[in-house]
Amino acid sequence: MNLLPLNHPMFAARTLRSFARSPTFSSLSPNWEGGVSMVQGASRGIGLEFVKHLLENNEKGHVVATCRNPGQATGLLELKNKFDERLCILELDVTNETTIKASAKSIEERYGSLNLLINASGILSIPNVLLPETTLNKVEKSSLLHAYEVNAVGPILVIKHLWPFLKAGGGSGTEREVAVVANISARVGSIGDNRLGGWHSYRASKTALNQCTVDTDLSRPFQRNVPEGKLFTKEFSVQKLMTIINNAKSQDNGKFFAWDGQEIPW
Amino acid sequence: MNLLPLNHPMFAARTLRSFARSPTFSSLSPNWEGGVSMVQGASRGIGLEFVKHLLENNEKGHVVATCRNPGQATGLLELKNKFDERLCILELDVTNETTIKASAKSIEERYGSLNLLINASGILSIPNVLLPETTLNKVEKSSLLHAYEVNAVGPILVIKHLWPFLKAGGGSGTEREVAVVANISARVGSIGDNRLGGWHSYRASKTALNQCTVDTDLSRPFQRNVPEGKLFTKEFSVQKLMTIINNAKSQDNGKFFAWDGQEIPW
Repeated sequence: MNLLPLNHPMFAARTLRSFARSPTFSSLSPNWEGGVSMVQGASRGIGLEFVKHLLENNEKGHVVATCRNPGQATGLLELKNKFDERLCILELDVTNETTIKASAKSIEERYGSLNLLINASGILSIPNVLLPETTLNKVEKSSLLHAYEVNAVGPILVIKHLWPFLKAGGGSGTEREVAVVANISARVGSIGDNRLGGWHSYRASKTALNQCTVDTDLSRPFQRNVPEGKLFTKEFSVQKLMTIINNAKSQDNGKFFAWDGQEIPW
Repeated sequence: MNLLPLNHPMFAARTLRSFARSPTFSSLSPNWEGGVSMVQGASRGIGLEFVKHLLENNEKGHVVATCRNPGQATGLLELKNKFDERLCILELDVTNETTIKASAKSIEERYGSLNLLINASGILSIPNVLLPETTLNKVEKSSLLHAYEVNAVGPILVIKHLWPFLKAGGGSGTEREVAVVANISARVGSIGDNRLGGWHSYRASKTALNQCTVDTDLSRPFQRNVPEGKLFTKEFSVQKLMTIINNAKSQDNGKFFAWDGQEIPW
């Protein structure tokens, strides 16, 4: 089994110009110096690395880190000790829309706007529940639906509920001109965003909203056959992806990028 | 709204060489002259057209047509009157795996093998239940999951349960060297089959298994803005797609084709 393609983190970026000047949102749009970023799925792996990178590389930036069980997220709690008020940890389970709404509400009350949303959560396997099938006859309906709910539906709902604050924030307080939504993906999938807008359910049932499987706990059981040097560290991956995020322009909206910034045809 | 891309029928083809010579399957593999084809989602639209085309253009070929309500499938019943024993109509609802298994069992008992499977079913909208969303804030979890269950999970399960008979059949009785599975798709989606095999749930949650939206009842409400001449008839679409199917080679396995035979990059 050659898993090479899985080791190239890539993501679909969406850019949003601010409409903070509209009367509706003006009260929600303080210019947070350094900007406000949210990393969804931040307890470990590439999500945690994004939080760390954002806090360490932008000393005025604020970060909202979400995960299912904040109390057990030792990596985040360590960062909280170090960065204090610049890090806000919230409970969010992508399969529970109530927690998504509650996080959005907290962000609205605390910041009123957002400049970056990174969807980093995702599942590949759950022991005894969801296994990466080796043959077609092992595919079960329950697994298909569960993976879809977590890897596609969840991130879509997160974007839905954070959208107003991303629009309010735009690129204010950052060096970017726009707000950015980045969904971590993998080369096994592909994006079908044809820029026509709408029809989300229809399109989503066939579109990539994937999961990064770089060197994290998620993909560790499947790395045995990856040639040495071909598996990126999460630090390297995050550096590369942040470079793309930081250079995102309006015209990058809906594009699909590989780790090295190359645009991927869908 | 420009819906042009939806009007180019395309599909992902999978080819299967026969292993009919293996002792296990030899008893299941009569060489049905003209071959045995199955069209899933055959009551109307492009599915019905495939059934008609297969019956009219291969006078020795047999066709299994499946749909949710055979008793109401007037188009199929008319064809049954005309082609009699060459057409077998079975009840199959992709959201009910029991009916998929029952159809597979019927095919096993009646033919023992299959040479072509076309997944033509799919939903875009259901009045008051599932609507093609126009903006992100209209996206609902229930719609996302329902569309996925019908458009992606269903066809995958159909392939799963018919796989043994496709492998048994290969290209026997046809002019092809291989059996073919064709999933009708649309340009709004894209295929992520990276030919590494396995990990179906993970991959499927982000891969295209789409729905053809050529000139059928399915897409009629959304055709208003399509320039004249740009919307293909179902007859034309089926002719084009059958040309691709009939020319499918082993090396076409996992490829993604446009209506004109052009391979589409994923």
